Amino acid sequence: MTEYSGLLTDLYELTMAAGYFQTRFDGSATFELFVRHLPPHRNFIVAAGLEQALEYLEHVRFSPDEVDYLRRHRSFRHIHEEFFEYLARFRFTGDVWAMPEGTLAFPGEPLMRITAPVIEAQIMETYLLATLSYQTMVASKAARIVMAAQGRQIVDFSARRSHGGPASLLSARAAQIGGCRGTSNTLAGEVFGIETYGTQAHSWVMAHPDEAEAFSHFLDAFPEGSVLLVDTYNVHNAVKTIIRLNRKPGGIRLDSGDLTADSRWARRALDRAGWKDVRIFASGDMDEYKIAQVIRDGAAIDSFGVGTALGTPGDAPHVNLIYKLAEIEREGKVRQAAKFTRAKATYPGRKQVFRYSNARGEFAADKIALEDERPNGGEPLLIEVMRGGQRVAEPESINALRDRCMASLDRLPKRFRQTHRQAVYPVRYSERLTAMREKVRQRIRRFAVK
Amino acid sequence: MTEYSGLLTDLYELTMAAGYFQTRFDGSATFELFVRHLPPHRNFIVAAGLEQALEYLEHVRFSPDEVDYLRRHRSFRHIHEEFFEYLARFRFTGDVWAMPEGTLAFPGEPLMRITAPVIEAQIMETYLLATLSYQTMVASKAARIVMAAQGRQIVDFSARRSHGGPASLLSARAAQIGGCRGTSNTLAGEVFGIETYGTQAHSWVMAHPDEAEAFSHFLDAFPEGSVLLVDTYNVHNAVKTIIRLNRKPGGIRLDSGDLTADSRWARRALDRAGWKDVRIFASGDMDEYKIAQVIRDGAAIDSFGVGTALGTPGDAPHVNLIYKLAEIEREGKVRQAAKFTRAKATYPGRKQVFRYSNARGEFAADKIALEDERPNGGEPLLIEVMRGGQRVAEPESINALRDRCMASLDRLPKRFRQTHRQAVYPVRYSERLTAMREKVRQRIRRFAVK
Repeated sequence: MTEYSGLLTDLYELTMAAGYFQTRFDGSATFELFVRHLPPHRNFIVAAGLEQALEYLEHVRFSPDEVDYLRRHRSFRHIHEEFFEYLARFRFTGDVWAMPEGTLAFPGEPLMRITAPVIEAQIMETYLLATLSYQTMVASKAARIVMAAQGRQIVDFSARRSHGGPASLLSARAAQIGGCRGTSNTLAGEVFGIETYGTQAHSWVMAHPDEAEAFSHFLDAFPEGSVLLVDTYNVHNAVKTIIRLNRKPGGIRLDSGDLTADSRWARRALDRAGWKDVRIFASGDMDEYKIAQVIRDGAAIDSFGVGTALGTPGDAPHVNLIYKLAEIEREGKVRQAAKFTRAKATYPGRKQVFRYSNARGEFAADKIALEDERPNGGEPLLIEVMRGGQRVAEPESINALRDRCMASLDRLPKRFRQTHRQAVYPVRYSERLTAMREKVRQRIRRFAVK
Repeated sequence: MTEYSGLLTDLYELTMAAGYFQTRFDGSATFELFVRHLPPHRNFIVAAGLEQALEYLEHVRFSPDEVDYLRRHRSFRHIHEEFFEYLARFRFTGDVWAMPEGTLAFPGEPLMRITAPVIEAQIMETYLLATLSYQTMVASKAARIVMAAQGRQIVDFSARRSHGGPASLLSARAAQIGGCRGTSNTLAGEVFGIETYGTQAHSWVMAHPDEAEAFSHFLDAFPEGSVLLVDTYNVHNAVKTIIRLNRKPGGIRLDSGDLTADSRWARRALDRAGWKDVRIFASGDMDEYKIAQVIRDGAAIDSFGVGTALGTPGDAPHVNLIYKLAEIEREGKVRQAAKFTRAKATYPGRKQVFRYSNARGEFAADKIALEDERPNGGEPLLIEVMRGGQRVAEPESINALRDRCMASLDRLPKRFRQTHRQAVYPVRYSERLTAMREKVRQRIRRFAVK
């Protein structure tokens, strides 16, 4: 089993680890995870993936076989045996502060800050980046889709486009954090307790000689709450067939065609049959833009299934989280670190993010400051989640994470919640941070000039 | 352990399964996986993921807990106990034909054809779609990047953008099928035997008081073959520092800035030092377009690391594979199935794909035909890989899969290998297939008219 394997990392993390070990560089380091810029079409991101990151930090190990793999690796041929023995008893012993999942975040703001012996902190980089980037990407997209749906239910259908089975579970989870209510992913239902929903595929209809038999056989097996798929041949005929059967389904699903016209026609037909409570569900390459469009056009749709756009969105398929050294200690001496190369600059020091609200309770601006600053009135966003390798905060329920995200979106001024227009939320750096950055710049200036 | 869980599927596959079970619909069905259209910017796709698909088909099970989850699920409250007992002893017993991994494929061509009792074939849909879509997406992107590099080595750096640890392994694997040679992903190295490569991060350089110490400490631990990162502060200074140390590294890495100018400058400086065999490696948001550009501009780069663009490419982050019913048997009677809705039409019947070459050995055209057709001269692309739930073909090495892909690309006419221009490879349907489709259309015509 490789779920918590220490080898789930880039080889360079392990060569650097060996380098630190062999040159007896054993101070502690602070790294921070953040984005330099928002992905395209995003006014914010929704922090997600912390739970899986903490599980990894708690459980990461190198098995004897894995240590042997490195022992035999050509790159490690000059590395002493002590390093491999160190890996065999490797544990993560560091401290972690992080934004709780469901928190809205902006460029420059650490989603996570990790302080640990430099070797441990370095080895964790790749896993932490992947885990937080992925779920943050999905939750951020989900929030946009949910906003566009204006209260209509969104169900995650992303399993079949996911990057394999385990990825599908995390995508279902992150979609809920961003506001989805339900998933088609059965295992995600079992593992995370998410509500699962299912209807039927075109193949069910095509496997039967006609729709009357396809629908009535399905209703035989599932007499309550069934959602029948009506676009295999012709939506009008299918809806008429269901009404003629005189067996009320839970709902109908449209998966193609003119969703606005078909849903309005179906709504009227169902209402005339006295079936006002039969819900209309729509799916088929939906995203926030198409949902907003059909709602504007007056579609009579109660609920949407969204798949591809949630798990592998074409408009922003990745969140470019980075993992940057902010502080390093060696032989008892602490140094702040920052980068100044064009377009890749970072700020030094251990940071905290403070969020300020206006009189109406709306988010007004954020300030990124040093962790020991106490700026007036701002709410600190990073909380302590792990100390000495032990979790200090209980895992939260997915419902609590969704509630946090929804409550935060309610407090975000409307211009940042628009899905069709970009707006830049104000984020400043504290004066002390700016001064510290200047000091670091002076110190490393001699390397940077030609 | 959930790797081979039968619950790794959309709930509707399981409700349909229960529906088939309860209505005693126990004929066999044939489904085919293919794309209707190529993703944007693609002239072909590279089939990948078959090995993991077959492993799942061999090992898929429902654990007692998983069966209980369904037993308690509100949707299944009218389903008889026999169905849950059936799931508890569920095995996949079907036959599978597929394109070997590394085969080039085009729209309409089945990557896989599966014939099994309808319940089994239906439950497998979601997993098969996800597994083949994902690796096919990565391998197809990798092939473009490799073509753009014109023989220079491409190393997979996608782990940190992957959709979690297990996804990162598959991305590293699929990248090799598409022509990459090596990965940064250490576990992929152990699990799949892929060559792993690593250099050092900016944090290594920043953690040391200056580059001279950072480089010499790294060379102390890794005296042979080390690749030193030279863009933390200033590329020229870093390269001069390495030369002044007078300890020859294996290579240097550029991760930002003007790769063309910096690599040419570095090449001259290294050559003057008598280090003609020190390689220059480049990374940093590379893709096929940027690689083609710097090569055109005369960059002196020997090897590229590509991450984000491989695992989560912005130009085509998903391959829209579909899983369509082609044939269904019930009470001994076989019926062909097809869809005719606008933009979602499919062809009926069990298919084979034949590839024709011209006198120079170049691929000229494909024909999609019925499996029992033997058109003259075409090479059949689907081979039998599983019979009665048992594999009938040995797993292939990743090197063999890469070789197949590279040999196929060599035979693909140049216009389809261009990364900056789209060209449509000719694919036809056989006459018998076209006639069968017309027959099915006549049969289901009565459902389709308003």
